[in-house]
Amino acid sequence: MAGRGLFITFEGTDGTGKTTQIQRLSVDLRQANYDVCLTREPGGTPVSEQIRDMLLNPDHSEMAATTEVLLYAASRAQHVSEVIKPALKAGKIVISSRFADATVVYQGYGRGLDLERIHHLNRIATDGVTPDVTFVLDLPVEIGLQRVQKSRGGLDRLEREKIEFHRRLREGYQLLAKQEPQRLKLIDAQVNPEQVYAQIQAVIQPLLRQ
Amino acid sequence: MAGRGLFITFEGTDGTGKTTQIQRLSVDLRQANYDVCLTREPGGTPVSEQIRDMLLNPDHSEMAATTEVLLYAASRAQHVSEVIKPALKAGKIVISSRFADATVVYQGYGRGLDLERIHHLNRIATDGVTPDVTFVLDLPVEIGLQRVQKSRGGLDRLEREKIEFHRRLREGYQLLAKQEPQRLKLIDAQVNPEQVYAQIQAVIQPLLRQ
Repeated sequence: MAGRGLFITFEGTDGTGKTTQIQRLSVDLRQANYDVCLTREPGGTPVSEQIRDMLLNPDHSEMAATTEVLLYAASRAQHVSEVIKPALKAGKIVISSRFADATVVYQGYGRGLDLERIHHLNRIATDGVTPDVTFVLDLPVEIGLQRVQKSRGGLDRLEREKIEFHRRLREGYQLLAKQEPQRLKLIDAQVNPEQVYAQIQAVIQPLLRQ
Repeated sequence: MAGRGLFITFEGTDGTGKTTQIQRLSVDLRQANYDVCLTREPGGTPVSEQIRDMLLNPDHSEMAATTEVLLYAASRAQHVSEVIKPALKAGKIVISSRFADATVVYQGYGRGLDLERIHHLNRIATDGVTPDVTFVLDLPVEIGLQRVQKSRGGLDRLEREKIEFHRRLREGYQLLAKQEPQRLKLIDAQVNPEQVYAQIQAVIQPLLRQ
């Protein structure tokens, strides 16, 4: 790693278990004496959290799709400049729950915004910072949604629409993993958390030894 | 104008008299029975005003230059989508105090950010909406700053730095006016407000007759 740190991101639709795996990984890395910086998107800095609040504010239903994608880019630019770059420079292991790929998948594949434009904005926002490895937790959409809404009964119309949307997201992530197999590792998240973690370890350990 | 409205923007550094001229023009146009929509940047919509507050918040001194330029673009995208486009579609005359040119001049010529990047973000944010005419109120920088700080005495160090910055802004606006003489009209703002307004009228009247 030689003073430049290691940048790990986790991606995947809702209910795929990102938080569980990130927690486990960070505990293990800290026990092995690595300096770990845990962060997330959208958010990660005071400015970015304020942008996140704007994006999630239900009063802003009039927000244009272009505004939204530019706000995600602004939030990411601040996150990179204020948190990720300095931490990597200090030799830390940065683990982010979601990063640039999430915008490609959610706004691009999910909502149908122009992919070229999203890639361009990502290049501006990330300023050359690319994850060393990205874990895409992959799960059949129905299982992920059932995990999220465990306590409820059947699926209503809105939830069925949600399934269609999440299906496009899953396919988007699978496509990205095919396009950049060196960086994006598709992880089978249908197995139990132990088995998911074993797949992650199998990728991480050789990187740590480098 | 045939149902597509007329889009007029005012640009210029501080103290050049934009507000005075915009007020006068809008009163005259309304008296002549035109439907006028007055707006401004950064701002113009609830979402954009919230972004404006973030940009002007002195607690955000850690804001990265890239974040800032993306936030201006997000604010502009919302302004165009929610205010300017619908008003033009309804056949109104839209008058905006500052628009896309301001980002080119302030962030580009003033702060030295990459011009190509700013133009690209402007294209995304404006979504093809270009002013029919842009009045650039032009004034020697010292006079503009003196007007702003009328009540004070000499200029301190910070204010002298401000002069250098404003000089770059003025030159930036002059350059834009040379590049797009059909759209950007350089207005001599050193004369009295009546004479400034006469120059504006000379440009506006032929447009209204079209």
